[in-house]
Amino acid sequence: MGNTRIVVIGGVAAGMSAASQAKRRQPEADVIVFERGNRISYGACGMPYNIGDPSRDIEDLVVLTPGQALKRGIDLRLRHDVVALDTQRRMLTVRNLETEIEVEEPYDALVIATGAQATHLPLPGFDLPGIFHLRNLNHGRLIKNHIAKNSPSKAIVLGAGYVSMEMCHVLTEIGLKVQILKKRPRILRGWSEGTVSLVIDELKRHGVEIHTGMDITGAEAGTDGRVAALTTDQGPYPTDLVLQAVGVRPNVNLAAEAGLRIGETGAIWVDQGQRTSAEDIWAAGDCAESHHRILRRNVWAPLGTTANKHGRIAGANTIGEKHQFAGVVGTSGFKCFDLEVARSGLGLEQARTEGFEPVEVLITQPSRAHGYPGATPIQVTLIADGPTGIFLGGEIVGREGAAMRANILATALASHMTVADLQGLDLIYSPPFAPVWDPILVAANQLIKKVRNTT
Amino acid sequence: MGNTRIVVIGGVAAGMSAASQAKRRQPEADVIVFERGNRISYGACGMPYNIGDPSRDIEDLVVLTPGQALKRGIDLRLRHDVVALDTQRRMLTVRNLETEIEVEEPYDALVIATGAQATHLPLPGFDLPGIFHLRNLNHGRLIKNHIAKNSPSKAIVLGAGYVSMEMCHVLTEIGLKVQILKKRPRILRGWSEGTVSLVIDELKRHGVEIHTGMDITGAEAGTDGRVAALTTDQGPYPTDLVLQAVGVRPNVNLAAEAGLRIGETGAIWVDQGQRTSAEDIWAAGDCAESHHRILRRNVWAPLGTTANKHGRIAGANTIGEKHQFAGVVGTSGFKCFDLEVARSGLGLEQARTEGFEPVEVLITQPSRAHGYPGATPIQVTLIADGPTGIFLGGEIVGREGAAMRANILATALASHMTVADLQGLDLIYSPPFAPVWDPILVAANQLIKKVRNTT
Repeated sequence: MGNTRIVVIGGVAAGMSAASQAKRRQPEADVIVFERGNRISYGACGMPYNIGDPSRDIEDLVVLTPGQALKRGIDLRLRHDVVALDTQRRMLTVRNLETEIEVEEPYDALVIATGAQATHLPLPGFDLPGIFHLRNLNHGRLIKNHIAKNSPSKAIVLGAGYVSMEMCHVLTEIGLKVQILKKRPRILRGWSEGTVSLVIDELKRHGVEIHTGMDITGAEAGTDGRVAALTTDQGPYPTDLVLQAVGVRPNVNLAAEAGLRIGETGAIWVDQGQRTSAEDIWAAGDCAESHHRILRRNVWAPLGTTANKHGRIAGANTIGEKHQFAGVVGTSGFKCFDLEVARSGLGLEQARTEGFEPVEVLITQPSRAHGYPGATPIQVTLIADGPTGIFLGGEIVGREGAAMRANILATALASHMTVADLQGLDLIYSPPFAPVWDPILVAANQLIKKVRNTT
Repeated sequence: MGNTRIVVIGGVAAGMSAASQAKRRQPEADVIVFERGNRISYGACGMPYNIGDPSRDIEDLVVLTPGQALKRGIDLRLRHDVVALDTQRRMLTVRNLETEIEVEEPYDALVIATGAQATHLPLPGFDLPGIFHLRNLNHGRLIKNHIAKNSPSKAIVLGAGYVSMEMCHVLTEIGLKVQILKKRPRILRGWSEGTVSLVIDELKRHGVEIHTGMDITGAEAGTDGRVAALTTDQGPYPTDLVLQAVGVRPNVNLAAEAGLRIGETGAIWVDQGQRTSAEDIWAAGDCAESHHRILRRNVWAPLGTTANKHGRIAGANTIGEKHQFAGVVGTSGFKCFDLEVARSGLGLEQARTEGFEPVEVLITQPSRAHGYPGATPIQVTLIADGPTGIFLGGEIVGREGAAMRANILATALASHMTVADLQGLDLIYSPPFAPVWDPILVAANQLIKKVRNTT
């Protein structure tokens, strides 16, 4: 009998974390990674900023090269697509995308890290050159090449989530005129009106136009064969570049076909050890669910930092360790022009849906002490459960110190703090960093008046 | 019988907070504040930065004017010194510093907020013009006037705590050549060597000289009658300005003479409701002790934000409410040139003294994601109790995002988190704000290897 054979499907954040952990903790194991693409371990979240800097190569985002992975002792198979999983025989069917040859590969332990993919709008003309997704490194490269070669002057962004906000920012910075086209009036679904309103102001201040209420019907090419306009029920919108950022969904086909349990979220169900419903199979990253610490059940939270944590835990557990993913609390954020936008925990509507009786407070305070120059406003929205006083979440928007303050909320949520607990925090005070009452404490001092349990 | 008479001694941070809270919560009460000086409610912590900006008036630091206090219904008596307290008769002896007349003033509830004072070195010549403290607004005014009138070119800073670091920064920025003179070799007592070393680098990089190991013997005047040099056992150090920032001590004479319990720290003993040992007397701010959440006993932690919290609680409790001060965890910080320096919790030596068996880790990580421009190093030092894994404290130094990350530690300490709990935090990840593994998580991932309890 040979060494333990640990196989990982997918070589980006979660997959390479899992492979690295397994190999580090059990060097004698064979650790094999099958990756469909030709790049591993890149910082996908950095793509918008890389696109915004023509002087940098998209390859700068690669954190670990295939050569470095091999040096770690990981048996890396690029351009290999895992097309079937037989859990009874512990066997994978793997297609070499270069040779088109399929072989069977056994495993003792398997980590599925197949990621997620961008939603493609099935509209006529949406396969035209100049219409892009932004999910993997190749997408990023295509957008960069398009900008470098064709010097587009107008861009349309479809969707209004984090990637859209970041792309509005970077495309504007490199000189494009950017429009957001949306059917529904709201941008940043799930965020509070107070936050959304500041983001809209920031977008408009920088010349980004937001058009809502139309049905997009397709795309039309120009004489060069590239996209020249999007067509809508309200007429055409000329453009040189379209970014489709209307959503992502987990890649679960392989797991589902093999009979693994798919959660209600549509992602692969896992326990807190990242174990799937099948023996000796773990799942990690954007294809898998995450334990939510406030809701105490699984959610789908496809984010880079979570993927890394999943991978680390899954990798360690393949060799018999017993690590548990502590869970997410819903922390996320982005930068849009000069605005830091961040959150942690539940939003108001989500809290209601989950059966809480949320109360909310919104305050605006300066980022620095009275009399210290350079202060800018920080807007804090906090919500709590009215009857119990349990702190449920918050959003912070500002030009400095906003994103980092979301970490206070994240830490408080991990401990299931009440509003009174928040109020009692010994936060830093020094004039360059914060007012004598930190904006978080000011908000907590207001919120406590709205809850019934004040201890 | 008249209204309840709530008397507050001291009208700066804690005193005015207490008076405002009492009046707001019980508008029919008579709330009287005796303040020795002629200013109330100013942001003392902002003084160094105000001194560094000749275009601003020191009065900019006043948060609440006497007129505004009167409008709140507070009976404010400036230039009134409380010289005696009779707890049996519930009576104060108050001297009007303008008229020199003393009168007796009764109280039903009393808040002592007498603050702290700077230590004066009893050396020959140390009463010369040009030698300053920096504790109250008048000190700040004297320094500003001296700089404006006499255009000093050389300054000596005695002491090496927060105020000294801030003053080295601002005096250098307005063109003075600054020297720190110290007997002992260490600056920033109680901070880790890793932190101190970065601060020393930053000071030197900006031309601040640090001279240690000498005994200062006195000060000599020039022909203009102002300080011209400090004399030491290693010869004279010419100077045009001296800042004595060698320590502070709580103003407890009034309380001690009245028989109130003085804690082992030398400050007025209080319980978590800010009650002193005497009936119907509370103490708040820099004259009072603070409950420490990790040590579970009183410490002396004279900081502006704590003073405000004390005052708020003491004020509310004078009218019969039952608020508790949640306590400090030892959060503090300062900016020194471009460096943010912050901490929360215990230091290594302090942890040992307190009976813990601390283990420590020091890591340096970038402030932003791989490939995102403008990242600078963040140094994180974390300590935990080896046997239990309880997180005890940390220090963070960097050019961005360092001070705000101390709030993560402060929040974790409030919940008595273990290192494993820290590791499990769902901190924000977005390339402009943090790497995919936040520096705090990287440090926690290292620290967990050094503790015995990893859950």
